[in-house]
Amino acid sequence: MSTDNNINRLLQYRQVLIHLNELGFETVFSYSLGKEAGVSAEQVRKDFSQFGIKGKKKGGYNINELIFTINEIFRKDEMQKVILAGLGNIGNAMIQYKGFRKNMIQIVAAFDIDPAKYKHKYDIPVYPLESLQEVVNEIGVKIAILAVPEREAQQVTTLLVQTGIIGILNFTPAILKAPSHVLIRNIRISNELETLIYHTCFREEGE
Amino acid sequence: MSTDNNINRLLQYRQVLIHLNELGFETVFSYSLGKEAGVSAEQVRKDFSQFGIKGKKKGGYNINELIFTINEIFRKDEMQKVILAGLGNIGNAMIQYKGFRKNMIQIVAAFDIDPAKYKHKYDIPVYPLESLQEVVNEIGVKIAILAVPEREAQQVTTLLVQTGIIGILNFTPAILKAPSHVLIRNIRISNELETLIYHTCFREEGE
Repeated sequence: MSTDNNINRLLQYRQVLIHLNELGFETVFSYSLGKEAGVSAEQVRKDFSQFGIKGKKKGGYNINELIFTINEIFRKDEMQKVILAGLGNIGNAMIQYKGFRKNMIQIVAAFDIDPAKYKHKYDIPVYPLESLQEVVNEIGVKIAILAVPEREAQQVTTLLVQTGIIGILNFTPAILKAPSHVLIRNIRISNELETLIYHTCFREEGE
Repeated sequence: MSTDNNINRLLQYRQVLIHLNELGFETVFSYSLGKEAGVSAEQVRKDFSQFGIKGKKKGGYNINELIFTINEIFRKDEMQKVILAGLGNIGNAMIQYKGFRKNMIQIVAAFDIDPAKYKHKYDIPVYPLESLQEVVNEIGVKIAILAVPEREAQQVTTLLVQTGIIGILNFTPAILKAPSHVLIRNIRISNELETLIYHTCFREEGE
């Protein structure tokens, strides 16, 4: 089974490939691709071989073919539906985030406890949490973005799991508990900033 | 030097400790702390020892003391100032993000190319990018949150680095280039979701 790390690298390679494609390049060597993505050429070839992507000895990889193959691995032939729990500032940024559509991801419904949000005109339908089961069943969605206040994070997670959600992107600082079949990825904004602050302070003192 | 991983774990431990403290607990064993944070007791002790945090053989760690010590490591005695480049949806969510203040982080100024944003009433001053050098010098800030459109990401990064910024939290999908003294941490929202989708699809088929 592929680990999170090589999946993330594969997505990183695709990002580089799209950029190179926009610059007008048609082929790329594993060396250049690795350099742009911040890894070794060997790592690129290792990751590609793990996903069954074959290289050419001469002339490098065809960029368009490579993007197509990576997209196939991530099933970019069909739009992937996700739901959003919590329509605060971050939730709001998520439903307006332009990067999703490009990557064939679509937030199809949002949930919030505030009735005022149901009347507000968003681009997607907004429901009360009570409708979660019904909507999830109807849409057949498996992935949720969690952007509720921290104190409600665990409760909403439990609810999401009960309705059949098996993947959660957690924007709250809460450490969520869920059954082992549920995959949770955490975006901890404060922690990221604190790590940056720690390292830059440290470096300054070390000089 | 400490790696990003054990710094992130230390922040994770603090999150658990604050939670346990709120629940009324006064002491905690490395075993319980590890379990809540998703690591082994041995890992907890190893991380603590690396940061010079000493454990007690009997009765476990005092939770309040531990929070205090971790906060000292991250200099939580003073507010850490950061700036924000880009006042779009994500930038807007960032200046309203409540998690920062609790962690002694404060966005002190924002920058945007849209003149309409200078007139809009935000809680913090908003400047044109041309004022970056002046404001950075005046505030003495070293860290920036990057939330501009992807196509402007590299250009603004170069500008930030020129003004003396040495830590960047990158919300754009762009793979940024910067001199080696600049630390960049990437929050790749689409990639996180794609990884979730990949793993859950994979798991479903494996069943």
